[in-house]
Amino acid sequence: MEWKETARWIKFEEKVEKGGERWSKPHVATLSLHSLFELRKCIEKGTIMLDMEVSTLPQVVEMITDNQIEIGQLKADLKDKVMFTLLRKHRHQTKKSNLRSLADIGKTVSSASRLFSNQENARSPQENSVTCLSGHISVEDLQNQRSTSMDWLNSPTPTHQNLTSSSLNDISDKPEKDQLKNKFMKKLPRDAEASNVLVGEVDFLDAPFVAFVRLHQAVMLGALTEVPVPTRFLFILLGPKGQAKSYHEIGRAIATLMSDEIFHDIAYKAKDRQDLLAGIDEFLDEVIVLPPGEWDPTIRIEPPKSLPSSDKRKNMYAGGDSQMNGGMPHDGGHGGGGHTTGDELKKTGRFCGGLILDLKRKAPFFLSDITDAFHIQALSAILFIYLGTVTNAITFGGLLGDATENMQGVLESFLGTAIAGGVFCLLAGQPLIILSSTGPVLVFERLLFNFSRENDFDYLEFRLWIGLWSAFLCLVLVATDASFLVKYFTRFTEEGFSCLISFIFIYDAFKKMIKLAHHYPINSEFEMENITHYECFCMGPAVFGNETKVIDNSVDTADWYFNNTGLPLNTKWSSLTKSECLQYKGELVGKACYYVPDITLMSFILFFGTYTTSMCLKKFKTSPFFPTTVRKLISDFAIILAILIFCGVDIFVGVDTPKLIVPNEFKPTSPHRGWFVPPFGGNPWWVYLASALPALLVTILVFMDQQITAVIVNRKEHKLTKGAGYHLDLFLVAVLLVVCSFMGLPWYVAATVISIAHIDSLKMETETSAPGEQPKFLGVREQRVTGVFVFILTGLSVLMSPILKFIPMPVLYGVFLYMGVASLNGVQFMDRLKLLLMPAKHQPDLVYLRHVPLRRVHLFTFIQILCLGLLWILKSTVAAIIFPVMILALVAVRKAMDYMFSQHDLSFLDDVIPEKDKKKKEDEKKKKCDSIDSDAEDERSPSHSLIDTHRADQLRHYQDSYLSSPEMTPLKSVPQIRIDVDPDDENPFYWRSRGSETSL
Amino acid sequence: MEWKETARWIKFEEKVEKGGERWSKPHVATLSLHSLFELRKCIEKGTIMLDMEVSTLPQVVEMITDNQIEIGQLKADLKDKVMFTLLRKHRHQTKKSNLRSLADIGKTVSSASRLFSNQENARSPQENSVTCLSGHISVEDLQNQRSTSMDWLNSPTPTHQNLTSSSLNDISDKPEKDQLKNKFMKKLPRDAEASNVLVGEVDFLDAPFVAFVRLHQAVMLGALTEVPVPTRFLFILLGPKGQAKSYHEIGRAIATLMSDEIFHDIAYKAKDRQDLLAGIDEFLDEVIVLPPGEWDPTIRIEPPKSLPSSDKRKNMYAGGDSQMNGGMPHDGGHGGGGHTTGDELKKTGRFCGGLILDLKRKAPFFLSDITDAFHIQALSAILFIYLGTVTNAITFGGLLGDATENMQGVLESFLGTAIAGGVFCLLAGQPLIILSSTGPVLVFERLLFNFSRENDFDYLEFRLWIGLWSAFLCLVLVATDASFLVKYFTRFTEEGFSCLISFIFIYDAFKKMIKLAHHYPINSEFEMENITHYECFCMGPAVFGNETKVIDNSVDTADWYFNNTGLPLNTKWSSLTKSECLQYKGELVGKACYYVPDITLMSFILFFGTYTTSMCLKKFKTSPFFPTTVRKLISDFAIILAILIFCGVDIFVGVDTPKLIVPNEFKPTSPHRGWFVPPFGGNPWWVYLASALPALLVTILVFMDQQITAVIVNRKEHKLTKGAGYHLDLFLVAVLLVVCSFMGLPWYVAATVISIAHIDSLKMETETSAPGEQPKFLGVREQRVTGVFVFILTGLSVLMSPILKFIPMPVLYGVFLYMGVASLNGVQFMDRLKLLLMPAKHQPDLVYLRHVPLRRVHLFTFIQILCLGLLWILKSTVAAIIFPVMILALVAVRKAMDYMFSQHDLSFLDDVIPEKDKKKKEDEKKKKCDSIDSDAEDERSPSHSLIDTHRADQLRHYQDSYLSSPEMTPLKSVPQIRIDVDPDDENPFYWRSRGSETSL
Repeated sequence: MEWKETARWIKFEEKVEKGGERWSKPHVATLSLHSLFELRKCIEKGTIMLDMEVSTLPQVVEMITDNQIEIGQLKADLKDKVMFTLLRKHRHQTKKSNLRSLADIGKTVSSASRLFSNQENARSPQENSVTCLSGHISVEDLQNQRSTSMDWLNSPTPTHQNLTSSSLNDISDKPEKDQLKNKFMKKLPRDAEASNVLVGEVDFLDAPFVAFVRLHQAVMLGALTEVPVPTRFLFILLGPKGQAKSYHEIGRAIATLMSDEIFHDIAYKAKDRQDLLAGIDEFLDEVIVLPPGEWDPTIRIEPPKSLPSSDKRKNMYAGGDSQMNGGMPHDGGHGGGGHTTGDELKKTGRFCGGLILDLKRKAPFFLSDITDAFHIQALSAILFIYLGTVTNAITFGGLLGDATENMQGVLESFLGTAIAGGVFCLLAGQPLIILSSTGPVLVFERLLFNFSRENDFDYLEFRLWIGLWSAFLCLVLVATDASFLVKYFTRFTEEGFSCLISFIFIYDAFKKMIKLAHHYPINSEFEMENITHYECFCMGPAVFGNETKVIDNSVDTADWYFNNTGLPLNTKWSSLTKSECLQYKGELVGKACYYVPDITLMSFILFFGTYTTSMCLKKFKTSPFFPTTVRKLISDFAIILAILIFCGVDIFVGVDTPKLIVPNEFKPTSPHRGWFVPPFGGNPWWVYLASALPALLVTILVFMDQQITAVIVNRKEHKLTKGAGYHLDLFLVAVLLVVCSFMGLPWYVAATVISIAHIDSLKMETETSAPGEQPKFLGVREQRVTGVFVFILTGLSVLMSPILKFIPMPVLYGVFLYMGVASLNGVQFMDRLKLLLMPAKHQPDLVYLRHVPLRRVHLFTFIQILCLGLLWILKSTVAAIIFPVMILALVAVRKAMDYMFSQHDLSFLDDVIPEKDKKKKEDEKKKKCDSIDSDAEDERSPSHSLIDTHRADQLRHYQDSYLSSPEMTPLKSVPQIRIDVDPDDENPFYWRSRGSETSL
Repeated sequence: MEWKETARWIKFEEKVEKGGERWSKPHVATLSLHSLFELRKCIEKGTIMLDMEVSTLPQVVEMITDNQIEIGQLKADLKDKVMFTLLRKHRHQTKKSNLRSLADIGKTVSSASRLFSNQENARSPQENSVTCLSGHISVEDLQNQRSTSMDWLNSPTPTHQNLTSSSLNDISDKPEKDQLKNKFMKKLPRDAEASNVLVGEVDFLDAPFVAFVRLHQAVMLGALTEVPVPTRFLFILLGPKGQAKSYHEIGRAIATLMSDEIFHDIAYKAKDRQDLLAGIDEFLDEVIVLPPGEWDPTIRIEPPKSLPSSDKRKNMYAGGDSQMNGGMPHDGGHGGGGHTTGDELKKTGRFCGGLILDLKRKAPFFLSDITDAFHIQALSAILFIYLGTVTNAITFGGLLGDATENMQGVLESFLGTAIAGGVFCLLAGQPLIILSSTGPVLVFERLLFNFSRENDFDYLEFRLWIGLWSAFLCLVLVATDASFLVKYFTRFTEEGFSCLISFIFIYDAFKKMIKLAHHYPINSEFEMENITHYECFCMGPAVFGNETKVIDNSVDTADWYFNNTGLPLNTKWSSLTKSECLQYKGELVGKACYYVPDITLMSFILFFGTYTTSMCLKKFKTSPFFPTTVRKLISDFAIILAILIFCGVDIFVGVDTPKLIVPNEFKPTSPHRGWFVPPFGGNPWWVYLASALPALLVTILVFMDQQITAVIVNRKEHKLTKGAGYHLDLFLVAVLLVVCSFMGLPWYVAATVISIAHIDSLKMETETSAPGEQPKFLGVREQRVTGVFVFILTGLSVLMSPILKFIPMPVLYGVFLYMGVASLNGVQFMDRLKLLLMPAKHQPDLVYLRHVPLRRVHLFTFIQILCLGLLWILKSTVAAIIFPVMILALVAVRKAMDYMFSQHDLSFLDDVIPEKDKKKKEDEKKKKCDSIDSDAEDERSPSHSLIDTHRADQLRHYQDSYLSSPEMTPLKSVPQIRIDVDPDDENPFYWRSRGSETSL
């Protein structure tokens, strides 16, 4: 005869699968209405002992039985039997080592006649539980220490009762070894307290024996609990035989109640039985009912992704709605509702006011900006972003080299990236932003170079002056707090911009692959049969003037060739390699000359392989295989792994695919320039002033590119806590503009896609949470280390070329594709694009679809597509230079849409608040308004009654409708309790518990 | 002032999204307990009029108001106002055409001041609804005609009341155009009846106006309903202002009740108010409660995949458990519980008894076996299986040709496949089985051929006699009903066999690709730079004897070559093609000779591309994009589409990948044989008798291969309705064995993987079902047409070679890979393999995991892996010939496992009943046993009470605990009602409704 654990709760129910001998998945505890009413009756009729001052389980049991005898519910002669039953040993469901499992195989047979018994541990929200029996009592801090648990005893047939231990008390006071080893303890906060529910049927009782005990202070009750946690509450239900299932359900009901945030609060603070009953009634009031015909009760409901806050339930009974936080309507279409607090973007009106505020805001975080980086994730982020940055540097370096006749080449690109990026990440207001060359800058440089050459200007000097002017203008913008203007960038503008950049990334990746395919053409005419005619040989040019002699005198021909083409004597044309042949003006003749086998196809395999593998590995986090840590590691290193795998494939196949080649000597690409551009001497004096004009364009370009990326990075949904620094960022960009101009390096601004990839690779989630609770997105590892390291590595790449040369370019293009696609994730515009293809009935339950007619949503999407289309065309032509200015046009379009859409529609469609927050807010809002309006009908408020209108009457009436017991207090006592005990410590507690969660 | 539809039910709730102006996704209607209790009060106090004999809405309204005035609940002077309100126009949420939507844009502004009003239509289980107002009354068949709906009216501010129509009755009697056009009608069965719920608040009432009306006969009430369906029930609730939300919830509660199978039954049969109240109480009793702290009420719960049958609820109140179907425990480990009814496998004991039964069973279906094929899906199945069959024929044909020195080649393979397969599909007991050459047969033929050659036997004649003997033995097996033995094949054996075959498919696909890669080697040393030295030329053999002369006299050399190698005069070695060069004993010299560019890489792209695309397109059915029909079409044609796409890619790239080449001339592959094998003359006479020995092996091989595939095809989870025909199948195989032996064609038996693919491509699901209900798997299109056509096409392939030659072999290997992987789907063994990699907490909620300890599950899996490993090794060696015999060893292993595992564990692990059925059965079983046992604790039976033990007392007690109204009848009246009205038509109805579903 022993007690056996059957379930436990921290927040959700975990059952012991008797057959499976293990814990079930956490699930929502579905109860029957019946068991709740029976529980209510138990509390109504049973022994309630609050603040019992005892220290051991036998004491508790003794006091309860005495009380029951006193009030006449238990015959005195049964006392020993009851006590004997309650003090039996407790068996918990624990993970067994394999060794123990083998030992068990023998045991099962012998223990077949063992008594069936159950035990359930229930735990409360962020808290936890397990059971124990002994201790002394003292009141302590109650917060964050609630917990529940449930035990179950099925009575033995009488003969068995004597079989087991002869001692009255099977339970020692000290925690057992098993308890201490239990890994489940990790899931519990340090100050958790347990509630134990003991339920069973015995044959010697005629009437149920019910007790609800709250100890004055939580005490360790030995092996009662699964893990060594002190027990605070005890619910005991012993009943006559035959109703075991019903008892079990009652046990589950009280355990579920104790794991309910509101009810366990009431239980902690209850003064008498009535308070508990009121708590149950409050619970019943809020319960959600599923019709039996539409749901299968055997389905274990997975815990929901997010839970409603219990604040509104609290407030409902804590004296009206006055305390509810914020009756504000959701943010309108305008305004910076979506940006962080907005403090950063206030116009101070003082000279450099914003910059000074930025410095003050960021300075205190500087130390933590370094210490916060100590995590394996940072390593993955560094490698990932490094590869992205290097690829970008090479691509843009190559393009710039083309555009400027190597005045700025790949090496300048590397050096510039390293210097600008490193300095920025070390000192910027938002170190998560990654600087890079961007398209518009490239277009500008090309135009500038051509203009300089045509007008015989010194390109680098001209460029230096433009840079200086731009930097000056940027500093003016900083000094005047002009960055406050970014708050006019709404979701519409941001998403337009970031989608466009992502599309360009995706487009570029494919464009590069197609270019590669043209560079290594496939011979589609090749047939194995004709291999003997398939060749390429080098043929000397026709020997002019003495064609007839050639055949006769080969020595003469060699001389002629030496004189005319530089072909060394004693060298045959056929022995030359391809480039030698071309060098000596020879001609390549043959079908094979213009085709390259295998490389293109291999490149496509690598390209798509890298992309697909990255995608799959990234998603591996949500697969059910392997333990969480392994999955997280694989997911974090997804891109690096994909790159390694396909470098391996490339080496295995051995085809000579184009590889990443970084310069390995440190000197300017062009021999015509040095590392310092002298500011004077190259151009006429008026050019120094005239540069101010193109500088204006550069300023707009830099400001828009930089700030819109900053806005995207600082989005509220990224949950950044260290604040933004728009002014400081712009200041640094201006300074770097000066440095780069003087050194003749490219100019750098924030790169949207790589910055988003940086943030994505640094996202944090809660690690320990109650079983079944979804890990929450906590925020981003905000620090400067990853960025700085990325750029140090970029600088050192010159030394690493022996390693880097193993990376095929198609693999990196695959990474580009991945970055482009990944940065489109979670963009509302993309969701709306998908809606265009979905029939209405398959569309997901998005908040804006509940409130905005589909045709308006589509209209909005169409306008956005149109804008993006126009921008794309613009970007593809030479007009790309005014591209940043066109972003401003987006703001204007958005403004114009105010006349096409109602503010209501726009507030749902054009809003930077992410979906989840939105819904919550909406709920809150709904709770506020009692009248039916179009948005509020989802909600069902149980506090409104059909017949009566006054609140107190309502409650009484409602109560009458289903509670018959005459000694009942009216339900309105609930608000009273809660007013008594709540107001002071309610909110502090909830804030505290949240604080502790976020600090994990 | 008008009524506006706010929700509708067929089975699940669909809300009108006011803001979104559309129907929400169907979801489980979550109610609040409060609204249910208030509804109860409404029914208790309000006007209940059952079997009202009226034909128009005004009549109904008049009668209700009169009744209310009579009983004093309504002041007589308000009658007109109430009637006016109730007869206002109804507005339904309907899909608008785009044109109308545009017109609406203007309207929205002007109608902003329009009165807010709601209407909800609720519909019951398989039934449906919509509202109307008029008609006369007559009793009719009630079954299959229930329905519910809900209307809502929010009162106007008084001034508005006069704004609208001046006529008292806004509603015409005839269905409106909109109604008739409504596409929603398709979702409703023909004989659906509607329930309408009208809820609203008005300012002139002081007390709520409640009425529940059942019309004597369903009548069309004009525009009351969204679709033209006659109305049977009407619930009206008008109340004073201020409680709109509460009224709305009550409306939802009655609508949900009316959509509950049990309650609407009660509503149809109720004799008075008490019956309805008892119905509500029964509903409350069964309700599932979610604790408020663990669930967010704003989440719309997706309808569950399967719903519990309502039978147990019915039975619970219909007079005890005696009628419950089957108290049988779930099938034990032995026995053919998983096969179809088992009738097919009974040992008749009579000569050919089984065969005759098979013929009798299948003959009636012969016509429907042809007519059932008229569906687009059949076309897809034909193309898919055709390609699989052709590929198989070519592969095995090629291998057989190798093994038998072309005595049986590709053309024989095609011809044999076409004849054997076609005849089998036309006449077999199970026409879904596809015949094909299988591995063991191939191994046998190879051994046989070698043996014949070594002993100078005439191979074909020897083979003919073996075939004849085997056929004879098979016929003996048929005559003695030996097929009954297959019932000893349990899930363990079946899955072992089918997994092995699937693995072989997957392995073969890769093996072929690797062979291809070896055949077309990639030159990993290739460098573009050395293209000029990269060549392959044909060099003549060294001229023996006169090496020294060669240079001097080229004419002599040509002569010598002509004499020695057959090289034509006037031909240069360098002008020869590869095969010519080799033909004339020339030598291929050069780096390029041994490499083939591009082909291997392209093949891999095609291989993986076809596989991935097939997989993705197959899954497209569950994606949210495009309308259902489009998705289904894409999913059905997934493989064909994938093949077409990658044939296109192949043509686009133009690389000369190996193509499918079918013979295009009709003559035996070997010139040494004809189309008829003479039985005598080739071998000594004793060979004719000795052939009986190898024939025994062939018999076992044929019997096992054939019957285990048949068992897999006839699995219960495929829901085949036309019965199996094991004996008939074997008979046909024997006959075909004779035919093939005489014609010198390969022998054919059932091919597991292709047969499973055949079934998968013919699966049917319900098309119309209540919104939100999951389409159910109905079964397989059992017919003979697809099979016959596949083999006709196979026969005609000889003519289709110009088309087929565009299909690259790697694409077909990709299809093979897909077939292998797809046939592993849903195999329990694979699920258990996955479990090995999953931590316990991520494991899915499989029924055997609830009941069998994980280590036992793993042990079972390990044994299975071991068996498969051994079989794999066996299969890879020459011992493959005894492979079918080893399947028998699997049966023995399974038998031995009885001593390692308990019958309880085995019944869960080794059982052919698929998961779903299992769970249902388990539930039923659970309901049976009242005592707590390890399997039954999941269930919560609300019929057990804590304090009392007698059933009637329990109910009274339960009622007391939450129902206070003094006039209440005890809950036990519920069983009375149900006993009164149910026994006769209850079951027929449910069978009928199910029958109609399955016939869809």
